[in-house]
Amino acid sequence: MQSTMMSYPLTLAHLLERAGRCYPKTEIVARMPDRSLHRGTYCDFYRRARALASALRGVGLGKGERVATLMWNHAPHLEAYYGVPVAGGVVHTLNLRLHPEDIAYIVNDAEDRFLIVDDVLLPLFEQFKDSVQLERVFVVPLTGRPIPSAYENYEELLQSGQSEFTYPELDENDAAGMCYTSGTTGRPAGVIYSHRSMVLHSYTILLSAVFGMSSEDVVMPVVPMFHVLSWGVPHALPMIGGKLVFPGPHMDPESLVDLCEREQVTLCTGVPTMWLGVLQLLEREPGKHKFAAGMRIVVGGAAAPEAMIQGFDRHGITVIHAWGMTEMSPIGTVSRLKSHLRDLPEDQRYALRAKQGCVVPFVDARLVNDHGQEVPADGITMGELQVRGPFVTGSYHKRAPTPDKFTADGWFRTEDVATIDAEGYIKVCDRTKDLIKSGGEWISSVDLENAIMGHPAVAEAAVIAMPDAKWSERPLACVVLKPGMLASGEEINAFLAGKFPRWWLPDDYRFLSAIPRTSTGKFLKRALRQQIARATGQAT
Amino acid sequence: MQSTMMSYPLTLAHLLERAGRCYPKTEIVARMPDRSLHRGTYCDFYRRARALASALRGVGLGKGERVATLMWNHAPHLEAYYGVPVAGGVVHTLNLRLHPEDIAYIVNDAEDRFLIVDDVLLPLFEQFKDSVQLERVFVVPLTGRPIPSAYENYEELLQSGQSEFTYPELDENDAAGMCYTSGTTGRPAGVIYSHRSMVLHSYTILLSAVFGMSSEDVVMPVVPMFHVLSWGVPHALPMIGGKLVFPGPHMDPESLVDLCEREQVTLCTGVPTMWLGVLQLLEREPGKHKFAAGMRIVVGGAAAPEAMIQGFDRHGITVIHAWGMTEMSPIGTVSRLKSHLRDLPEDQRYALRAKQGCVVPFVDARLVNDHGQEVPADGITMGELQVRGPFVTGSYHKRAPTPDKFTADGWFRTEDVATIDAEGYIKVCDRTKDLIKSGGEWISSVDLENAIMGHPAVAEAAVIAMPDAKWSERPLACVVLKPGMLASGEEINAFLAGKFPRWWLPDDYRFLSAIPRTSTGKFLKRALRQQIARATGQAT
Repeated sequence: MQSTMMSYPLTLAHLLERAGRCYPKTEIVARMPDRSLHRGTYCDFYRRARALASALRGVGLGKGERVATLMWNHAPHLEAYYGVPVAGGVVHTLNLRLHPEDIAYIVNDAEDRFLIVDDVLLPLFEQFKDSVQLERVFVVPLTGRPIPSAYENYEELLQSGQSEFTYPELDENDAAGMCYTSGTTGRPAGVIYSHRSMVLHSYTILLSAVFGMSSEDVVMPVVPMFHVLSWGVPHALPMIGGKLVFPGPHMDPESLVDLCEREQVTLCTGVPTMWLGVLQLLEREPGKHKFAAGMRIVVGGAAAPEAMIQGFDRHGITVIHAWGMTEMSPIGTVSRLKSHLRDLPEDQRYALRAKQGCVVPFVDARLVNDHGQEVPADGITMGELQVRGPFVTGSYHKRAPTPDKFTADGWFRTEDVATIDAEGYIKVCDRTKDLIKSGGEWISSVDLENAIMGHPAVAEAAVIAMPDAKWSERPLACVVLKPGMLASGEEINAFLAGKFPRWWLPDDYRFLSAIPRTSTGKFLKRALRQQIARATGQAT
Repeated sequence: MQSTMMSYPLTLAHLLERAGRCYPKTEIVARMPDRSLHRGTYCDFYRRARALASALRGVGLGKGERVATLMWNHAPHLEAYYGVPVAGGVVHTLNLRLHPEDIAYIVNDAEDRFLIVDDVLLPLFEQFKDSVQLERVFVVPLTGRPIPSAYENYEELLQSGQSEFTYPELDENDAAGMCYTSGTTGRPAGVIYSHRSMVLHSYTILLSAVFGMSSEDVVMPVVPMFHVLSWGVPHALPMIGGKLVFPGPHMDPESLVDLCEREQVTLCTGVPTMWLGVLQLLEREPGKHKFAAGMRIVVGGAAAPEAMIQGFDRHGITVIHAWGMTEMSPIGTVSRLKSHLRDLPEDQRYALRAKQGCVVPFVDARLVNDHGQEVPADGITMGELQVRGPFVTGSYHKRAPTPDKFTADGWFRTEDVATIDAEGYIKVCDRTKDLIKSGGEWISSVDLENAIMGHPAVAEAAVIAMPDAKWSERPLACVVLKPGMLASGEEINAFLAGKFPRWWLPDDYRFLSAIPRTSTGKFLKRALRQQIARATGQAT
């Protein structure tokens, strides 16, 4: 039996029209390279995004063709987020923290046709421009300085747009955006989002059970817009008209704290490293900063240490712990305390908040063991976390799906090892590849790291597997101490005792000045293993 | 270019699985016919809805076949809301306030195969059972009394379900639910919702900019579950695990207030008539009742009078004004004050809150005049409100779309006359058919009614057009006075003076003991016109 409902596609064109018609006066604030604040409105955004769409059609952008961006977080990037897809194109955000060679690889793999680039990022572009074939390059004059004659001016492109623009016909399954995995292993791989997946992801993260964003919120996406579409915030917030505050290129703790205070930001997003820096700043200057009441920070991209969640609580700021992947648009889980768990003892509440949390609507999750069997959700048994849903990828651009990434019955393999408890809270214990297999049992490197980082002398810790003749593998801890602090391996193991079975405790400690990281701030354990192996003369 | 996202349908099966897996301990409370409270959990709901689905497949329910319900608001009705569609069937809620002949017409038009009926509603069913061909009738033993031998027991049906039930393959465009328009004119017409439309409507009403429901909310849907699927709340709330409180058959103000207090309800839904009764109760006993802090009531189905919004504010309860139609799943607009309008003078804020409000995400709206031209959104110019979106109907069951209901370019004609202001707030001025056309200008009967209801002596008012030789039509006001109060037409017109142009004021007043209403509580102006015409000896 057919429903009588209209066939109406879920596209970004609706969201853009809604932003312009329902919320013309909502503010969009962005920090410029010279630290000044640029103030605009949704009305400006609406007009300029439509002008961009019209202009891109004018210069011949065809359906499904890619427009790359090499940009910080600011209003013109938001225009590209909407203007490209509503013109029928695909916005492809380039990660400016990658090595120029990797960026070139990605531009070529995606077959990008046009590029929009911040003037302040031209020096980066020029490092790889000869390795790519971009038809036209539009430069955003953020600094106000003249555009080098080799390039075109983005503002002039916009001026060529017609105000009477009509959107081309868009199917909700049409490609709308493209991001590459950060690739801790292997070459980056392209994930292509559809209008539908972006709309459904937007609806999802707005929910009170997820980010909980409202029209009254002032949201500062600190997650770069070149990193999984800034976790979807720039597509979600205009749906309900919340105010946007962009940090531009100024991502240091001082600038972020200043902007939070100035604009009375109520919600931020970002990776733990970023917020650890902010927390250290607040601890140095207790009570100095006046934030909006009820301020929240959504932390993801890596596990939020329990100590960090507690630390922000002391400053009246609530950390909301989320987990996701580029392949998931990216939000998969959020850890929020359910009403009936509010009265648990404090330590249990923090332990729950430090878990990755419950799946968001329209993400299915299951745990599968080495034998391909689903394991029980008992909070103890570990298994590989597999997911599916309308905003989870089913393949990679130009690559045949392989069984190490996708199961035969259509689930995405996250390569995370996790547990799920009876309340549905997921705890990511490790990456499949980082798990330490000792005497036939599994040791979570992440659990050890988080516990070690709870030691007052420890700034950072990464735990890796070392080959062991008797146990197959044994944990080795690499620790960065806080400036002026000292601690031995024995002292740290004494601190850990009681938190874990004895056989989990690291056999060895190495004290380093820094732990190698990926461009998105995650520990790069592959590099760490190589470094330790070289130092000990072992084969990796 | 194809996106790489998975093809994953938006179905109620996901919502049911989510409710059971993520929120097993959330409570569902329902008032029974004997006034006792039945307490269950989402875990019970999940098991019983799946048992129902399995049992319905067992008794041969095929894809797209209709299962009618004749039930109050309670847990078994919620089971049917999910159990029927996840079995591949279509849940068709019968409006028990209709005349038995109309119910029979609707059952036959929908070709319902099975019926689930509350035992307390069997006397109603028996008034039309001989006019319909239902294959099996399952009776819910709400009272605990034995089921008459002519019928089957719903609990026994559930027991026949298998616990290892696998959902049939569901397409998101499959029919999932069915409701009939209340039909102020003509025969009721069937609207068929899809899994997709229900999921998208659920996402929409959860948003902070719409109903704003969270996992912490305790929601009492007073809107009957037989009335446009209780405005979608029973499908939306389980998505985020909020607690549900059902009033059962006890819909009187005393019972509702008692339940709000007992369960500390934070959000209710209902038509103005219902809440006017509650407000009168509160005014009689000021300060007696202790409600949850921040309690909200979503009011729709008819315009919420400004005086009612103010009245509830005095008791610390916020009225959220919404507008919709059976054809819209049903929510189309919600009136919430935008942040930058918070500082307006009080009277302007109330005037905005008394408007129908801004369209919700994924509803498009436009105003069209008698010549088929779109009119400007200036807050003054009236036009017929036309809408479209993924949860707006594009036709009626078994009826060819007619130009009085659907435009050639695919919009649904609401038959409401409205204005839209520069901020996007829609104000419904009248039904197309109730608009008073006086001397070539339009007079809104609804505006007059709301203003008259602001007079301290007036309980209810309905304004209708009377034929007039000179002006074509002139307004006549039908007024029900509050008990023990008196007011003349002259006094009321003096009260209205200044609020409207002079030529808007009614020429004549009639004082009645009641105004005829539809089964869903709306003024039945057709009947009122006939009544007045009979009294004055005029032709209608």
